Amino acid sequence: MTEILDTVDTAFRLDIALIHYPVINKKQELIGSAVTNLDLHDIARAGKTFGVGTYWVVTPYEQQQELAANIAGHWTEGYGGTVNPDRAEALSIIQIRANLEQVIAEISEKGGRVPLVVATSAGQLCKRTSYETLRSTLQEGRSVLLLLGTAWGLAPEVTELADATLPPIKGPGAYNHLSVRSAASICLDRLCGEREDRG
Amino acid sequence: MTEILDTVDTAFRLDIALIHYPVINKKQELIGSAVTNLDLHDIARAGKTFGVGTYWVVTPYEQQQELAANIAGHWTEGYGGTVNPDRAEALSIIQIRANLEQVIAEISEKGGRVPLVVATSAGQLCKRTSYETLRSTLQEGRSVLLLLGTAWGLAPEVTELADATLPPIKGPGAYNHLSVRSAASICLDRLCGEREDRG
Repeated sequence: MTEILDTVDTAFRLDIALIHYPVINKKQELIGSAVTNLDLHDIARAGKTFGVGTYWVVTPYEQQQELAANIAGHWTEGYGGTVNPDRAEALSIIQIRANLEQVIAEISEKGGRVPLVVATSAGQLCKRTSYETLRSTLQEGRSVLLLLGTAWGLAPEVTELADATLPPIKGPGAYNHLSVRSAASICLDRLCGEREDRG
Repeated sequence: MTEILDTVDTAFRLDIALIHYPVINKKQELIGSAVTNLDLHDIARAGKTFGVGTYWVVTPYEQQQELAANIAGHWTEGYGGTVNPDRAEALSIIQIRANLEQVIAEISEKGGRVPLVVATSAGQLCKRTSYETLRSTLQEGRSVLLLLGTAWGLAPEVTELADATLPPIKGPGAYNHLSVRSAASICLDRLCGEREDRG
């Protein structure tokens, strides 16, 4: 088991960051959003499944940082982890930081190189790349940090900071209001999902 | 807008059913699970995004049926729908039924033919099909009912009833504990997601 996980660690160098500030609301105003239990659990489980190194939870609010740390701690160090080791394994990839700059600095320091920072959005953005291109980039061993926005999405100042952006996830119709948990899961499957069974 | 949605309705005939009984627990014992708010919201939003006709919530427990109806009603007919019409549109695809047989009977009656019933699982099952094959089946206009299990997954009596099963969703490692919300989102993207931007 350890051997398999070590192989995964060296094969992919993908981190994800869930941004709680700065994001936008329905009126496109700059806001900070609240940490939610389900975002931590679902995205950590998807992250662990698809080989993500660290799931960074980014919020500048100290009480929200404490809340996130308490939730993750319950499942990794507390009672939850003893009754549900699968959940402990997933939530152990969570790290909480105050801002994106700090996340990028830490990844750069650890990996010896600044990661490629890639923003996601339900809308059309500049500096567009494709899922296939980014999948190849990851397979080549390049360190990538994928940014996910809570509320109505990442603030423009975050997407402007990114090196590249992924196209919106779409179905056959005009409706396009996925939860960030669904969007994260789909992005990770497109980038890192096993394909041998896909026909 | 109406025109686009009508086209979608005729192009795909995909329904999904979230099964709360019979499912299994961690010890592989037959159980009934509780309806959750987040399963209703996240899977309805993903369903609406990917052109699903009806999202069937299947539970034999009357109090759970009432709970599900109250949640969906709040967002489709109650106050929630007036402040968040996007959510109303998503949750309007929910129908609550006591068992799978009833769901299959209603789809058959409405569509004039029994749907192809396809089970999902995190494990290996018989009657395996691939995502690509099922995607083609849908594009040919065949009516399909996709079954999703809560708790630790669908009971054997449900998967045995299915015409076909999809392979488990996997990442590069051995960990495989996605939430049913994540699994549903990824399945729908693989079956109905727009691909023009995928490289």
